[in-house]
Amino acid sequence: MFLRVNRVCCALQRFKSSSTGHLSKNFTSASHAAPNDVTVKPRTIFSGIQPTGIPHLGNYLGALSNWVKIQNENPQDRVIFSVVGWHALTLPQNPKELVASRRDMLAVLLAIGIDPKRSILFHQDANAMHTELAWILSCITPTGKLRRMTSWKARLAESRNANDESEVDESMLNAGLLTYPVLQAADILLYRATHVPVGEDQRQHLELSRDIADTFNRTFKGSSRMFPLPTALITPSKRILSLKDPSAKMSKSAADPASRILLTDSAAQIAAKVRAAVTDSITTGVTYDPSARPGTSNLLTILAACVDEDVHDVAARCAGMNHGELKAEVASAVEALVTGPRAEFERIRGDVGYLDQVAQEGAAAAYELSAQTMVQVRARVGLN
Amino acid sequence: MFLRVNRVCCALQRFKSSSTGHLSKNFTSASHAAPNDVTVKPRTIFSGIQPTGIPHLGNYLGALSNWVKIQNENPQDRVIFSVVGWHALTLPQNPKELVASRRDMLAVLLAIGIDPKRSILFHQDANAMHTELAWILSCITPTGKLRRMTSWKARLAESRNANDESEVDESMLNAGLLTYPVLQAADILLYRATHVPVGEDQRQHLELSRDIADTFNRTFKGSSRMFPLPTALITPSKRILSLKDPSAKMSKSAADPASRILLTDSAAQIAAKVRAAVTDSITTGVTYDPSARPGTSNLLTILAACVDEDVHDVAARCAGMNHGELKAEVASAVEALVTGPRAEFERIRGDVGYLDQVAQEGAAAAYELSAQTMVQVRARVGLN
Repeated sequence: MFLRVNRVCCALQRFKSSSTGHLSKNFTSASHAAPNDVTVKPRTIFSGIQPTGIPHLGNYLGALSNWVKIQNENPQDRVIFSVVGWHALTLPQNPKELVASRRDMLAVLLAIGIDPKRSILFHQDANAMHTELAWILSCITPTGKLRRMTSWKARLAESRNANDESEVDESMLNAGLLTYPVLQAADILLYRATHVPVGEDQRQHLELSRDIADTFNRTFKGSSRMFPLPTALITPSKRILSLKDPSAKMSKSAADPASRILLTDSAAQIAAKVRAAVTDSITTGVTYDPSARPGTSNLLTILAACVDEDVHDVAARCAGMNHGELKAEVASAVEALVTGPRAEFERIRGDVGYLDQVAQEGAAAAYELSAQTMVQVRARVGLN
Repeated sequence: MFLRVNRVCCALQRFKSSSTGHLSKNFTSASHAAPNDVTVKPRTIFSGIQPTGIPHLGNYLGALSNWVKIQNENPQDRVIFSVVGWHALTLPQNPKELVASRRDMLAVLLAIGIDPKRSILFHQDANAMHTELAWILSCITPTGKLRRMTSWKARLAESRNANDESEVDESMLNAGLLTYPVLQAADILLYRATHVPVGEDQRQHLELSRDIADTFNRTFKGSSRMFPLPTALITPSKRILSLKDPSAKMSKSAADPASRILLTDSAAQIAAKVRAAVTDSITTGVTYDPSARPGTSNLLTILAACVDEDVHDVAARCAGMNHGELKAEVASAVEALVTGPRAEFERIRGDVGYLDQVAQEGAAAAYELSAQTMVQVRARVGLN
């Protein structure tokens, strides 16, 4: 279930990260100078998220809060955020819930600070050029590359609960699950994005997008290179664990709703969930020790992220607390973090007219940009 | 090369047929009453052809002439013909040639009698909803079904010249080759086609389209069934063989251009190619005997098709001729058949403004119909 609910899809960034501690305030990439260097070429940054329910704290601290920072970092950057409905279809969805989730996700993004005046914010499924480009790219993408994606291999393994890959049968998995990395590449390349926020686990998909862009550039030459090769934008992010099982990530698909805090949870719900969080039996003080004290350390990680401080500093400050005191501090910090976005979400989500207007204007802006790309793509491949 | 140049793609009808003799004047399907029955429900008929060069006589007699008959059969039918450029991309194309071939194919279809006032005639690649629906359908299509398509298996075998399937490696084949039957299904279902002209070798693709339609109908229920299950429209057609190697079909990809007659060949070219056709060493009279006298029988098949008579009647009439006399008769009949379309093609192909207008009006009509489908499809799957 991991992929369905947690996939921040075209972002090539899932709601997790292999980094565990720091949340730095800059996003840099190996091939790109610091964003505050005024000589730097403006970037086009693309990211996407699946509309699969209200994000939880792990989603927010792991990915979405970075989006806002990216948006606000350099006014010269073109920043594009998409709610990627077509990717959600790769797994079974309840259509009625999906309709609501699409609006929920748009409202959440607005509520946390994505500003449609500064970023292009739109529904992927409102712009059929994504699928048009995906088809064209699928004709230059070897199936072997798709079958080597770890996301596909994970699906294979999951589909049979098999112990090793040789046992499994891919025949029942739908074609969308195999080819969605090509749609991701199209999502990115349609806007000629130069940078894509990416978590470690999505690096392979970005590499594929670069491969596909390069193949297109070499196969369909023109007066200039059609696609920039998109660069990973390293987004340091928190890995927030389940409140009930700190050996696992906080996840929307976990059976116990108390294992996660949603961005729309009330102060009382937050306090109750944090109070019931699994910690450990060490009663004398608080220390940050993820392997020996995963539950307690997770609370410290959450607290540090909420107040935007280094986790070790936070741990030092909380050293004398007991679990109850730490939990009260965490609940208070989480509530302080989400109170604004939660209120904004409620306000915006209730204003369907505004949401539709944002979606419409975002789609028009996305359409205009992508149409420029597709005119050239069609001419390069001979479909004009 | 067979698939590239000869695939009449969404038509689910290649330029060949397993039938060898009769060209009946009606097109019927097992589940459908005779078209001249006035109580019959109007049909929506969809067919497509790849823009991969000027059709040859085998293409024309095997498939395209049937399109004109289908169009003219029942004024109540909605008839939709598409030049399917996206399918052409599954194999490498020269972009400049593809641009010309798209216009060539539109001009050929007009020249042989497809009337844009009676049929919707359009470029598939002008309507991105084909790829949008294809994506949605790919999410309910198991990869196993695609890997069982004989077209895919043929590609696999061809890619390695392997002696059996277990030897081949599919990894280098592009994803479009695997998934194009889903795009075909979308081509058909986007217009809620009830009938699809289909040759024996494309039955499997139509079966897949029916499967996909049925899966969609069952998965995304509504007040009514979303898609009709498209029915094969049996189109009796000629199997025209190579003039140089009557063991093979007439083919655009054969090395020797004298093996085929193009619809645009001049009278002199036609006469020369027919004169040089391979026959046999039996000099005393002409008989229709496909196994013992394949070259001579192929000439009789061509002659019978051109004059729209039974091949056995034609053979009886020609019984006393020698090969030279038969060839003169064939060349004359072919010239009589193509002279009108050839002149029309030259006229229309030179009028790019008219071609563009036809393409534009056809695209608008196709767009209007498909938009009605997609509004409902999006609502059913939850993307609205």
